[in-house]
Amino acid sequence: MSTATAHFADRLTAAVRARGNPLGVGVDPRWEQLPRELRDRHGGRSLVEAAAAFEELCTRVLDVVAPLVAVVKPQSAFFEACGPAGLACLQNVLHYARRLGLVTILDSKRNDIASTAEAYADAAFAGTAIDGATHPVWDADAMTVNPYLGRDALEPFLRSARRSARGVFVLVRTSNAGAGMFQDLPCAGKPLYQHVAEAVGAWSRENLGRCGYGDVGAVVGATHPAELKQLRQLLPDVIFLIPGFGAQGGKAADLAGAFRAEGQGAVVNSSRGITAAFDPDDQSWESAVEKAAREAVAALKAVTSRA
Amino acid sequence: MSTATAHFADRLTAAVRARGNPLGVGVDPRWEQLPRELRDRHGGRSLVEAAAAFEELCTRVLDVVAPLVAVVKPQSAFFEACGPAGLACLQNVLHYARRLGLVTILDSKRNDIASTAEAYADAAFAGTAIDGATHPVWDADAMTVNPYLGRDALEPFLRSARRSARGVFVLVRTSNAGAGMFQDLPCAGKPLYQHVAEAVGAWSRENLGRCGYGDVGAVVGATHPAELKQLRQLLPDVIFLIPGFGAQGGKAADLAGAFRAEGQGAVVNSSRGITAAFDPDDQSWESAVEKAAREAVAALKAVTSRA
Repeated sequence: MSTATAHFADRLTAAVRARGNPLGVGVDPRWEQLPRELRDRHGGRSLVEAAAAFEELCTRVLDVVAPLVAVVKPQSAFFEACGPAGLACLQNVLHYARRLGLVTILDSKRNDIASTAEAYADAAFAGTAIDGATHPVWDADAMTVNPYLGRDALEPFLRSARRSARGVFVLVRTSNAGAGMFQDLPCAGKPLYQHVAEAVGAWSRENLGRCGYGDVGAVVGATHPAELKQLRQLLPDVIFLIPGFGAQGGKAADLAGAFRAEGQGAVVNSSRGITAAFDPDDQSWESAVEKAAREAVAALKAVTSRA
Repeated sequence: MSTATAHFADRLTAAVRARGNPLGVGVDPRWEQLPRELRDRHGGRSLVEAAAAFEELCTRVLDVVAPLVAVVKPQSAFFEACGPAGLACLQNVLHYARRLGLVTILDSKRNDIASTAEAYADAAFAGTAIDGATHPVWDADAMTVNPYLGRDALEPFLRSARRSARGVFVLVRTSNAGAGMFQDLPCAGKPLYQHVAEAVGAWSRENLGRCGYGDVGAVVGATHPAELKQLRQLLPDVIFLIPGFGAQGGKAADLAGAFRAEGQGAVVNSSRGITAAFDPDDQSWESAVEKAAREAVAALKAVTSRA
């Protein structure tokens, strides 16, 4: 089990400072995007074979990016797609990432009430308690959650995170084209996502680290530069998790408003743009992953050096 | 794999009619609520042992309730709490429920965008495709989803459900005490949950079964009788999934407004009230489960006979 005791935001900001860039690498294995080498070797006749290929891809990508970035974000959906074998793979990938010193964000967007939310949160963080013993499950440094159910449903996630010095990222403004359907509805003079943002700001201030940021972050899509800038002003002490950079169309220059001093305050995630940055037939696919990661790092450094 | 081809709402309403009641049994295994007999026999020194105990509880509960009810709803969180072994247990429990002829609703409240949502949905329904072959994962008849991300993010769930004649239940008004924090925010003249409800109504009408109900349902807490009645009027062709009956404080009489003719149009879920309806030391715990299920059925029949 992770033995972290320092505040999540302090650990995250220190790791970002050490690497000198805010890039997070999304670990999202998809069968049809795997290198042909891996597909051929592992087969693909069963979910067990597919999960084994996923695990090799993910650990080799982690080896490549660990010297370059501070954060990785496995997307739970792609591991769940392989059933129990895929979830054993997720467990191994998270463990491998921790051993490499990476900060891990489990992107699972969980949400539920009371003891159900507690079960999700304990599994994500310190582990599941049975007869007084705690058994680690995913043991991630942070997880993503969905706010629709309100504060009392998020409370078990916050409580579990705070018991073990982990973090929670709450969906505020998502990166999909149709995100505004409900998130932009005008509610009492401002869009719904601003109500959620203000709540996230209040929750974050409940437990600030020495770095000045809280342990409750906000997920804000890279595809909405105007909202990014406005939310940064509204939430000075909230860490943003910004998906949608790269493959989803978000550009580095659009992100400038998301950062505070020293390029801190935001983790910018790229998934397919790095973990699938190659032709499946390319034998030197790891070089392509490294090149894509270095390019993304350089693009973000150009932005944060001006922040 | 389930070979269902009939429309989800037609299958569900026929199953409810055959059993003569709308009770759904929530399958939510919690270690501390297991019969001591099971805890002692399986141990509990590891998540693998706990998952084995969960599986025995769940299959024995299904044996008891299958002659009485039409629907079961496993809560994903409690299986995930045991990691990969727990998810193998979830798979086995869903398979066992199907063999008993039960309609299965996987309560996982998933939400994400584009191909990520598709991965969740395919895993929940027909299965994950690899090199043209489809591998079943959870193979549930329906699943719950969270609407915060909007229609384009729900679209992959609807598409996957419709390809394999399954159903989707969208959170509208949840059963927790603080549900109103965002769900009740007044947006353009009405609370947010009504906007979500109207969207669910439109999505449901895209694919109505012969029974007159659609394949997109609404999750509405039993703890809000006034909203239940109002939503029933707003959404005549939407099936409601009503959690919070029993342990969470929802009473049968409060549910009257949720039903349409013949006690149709709603599935009322009870979880702990049935699957933990015993003292752990009670050796005849299955009798207690059966008694609780029969009482819940009787309470609901009393309501639906007046609908």
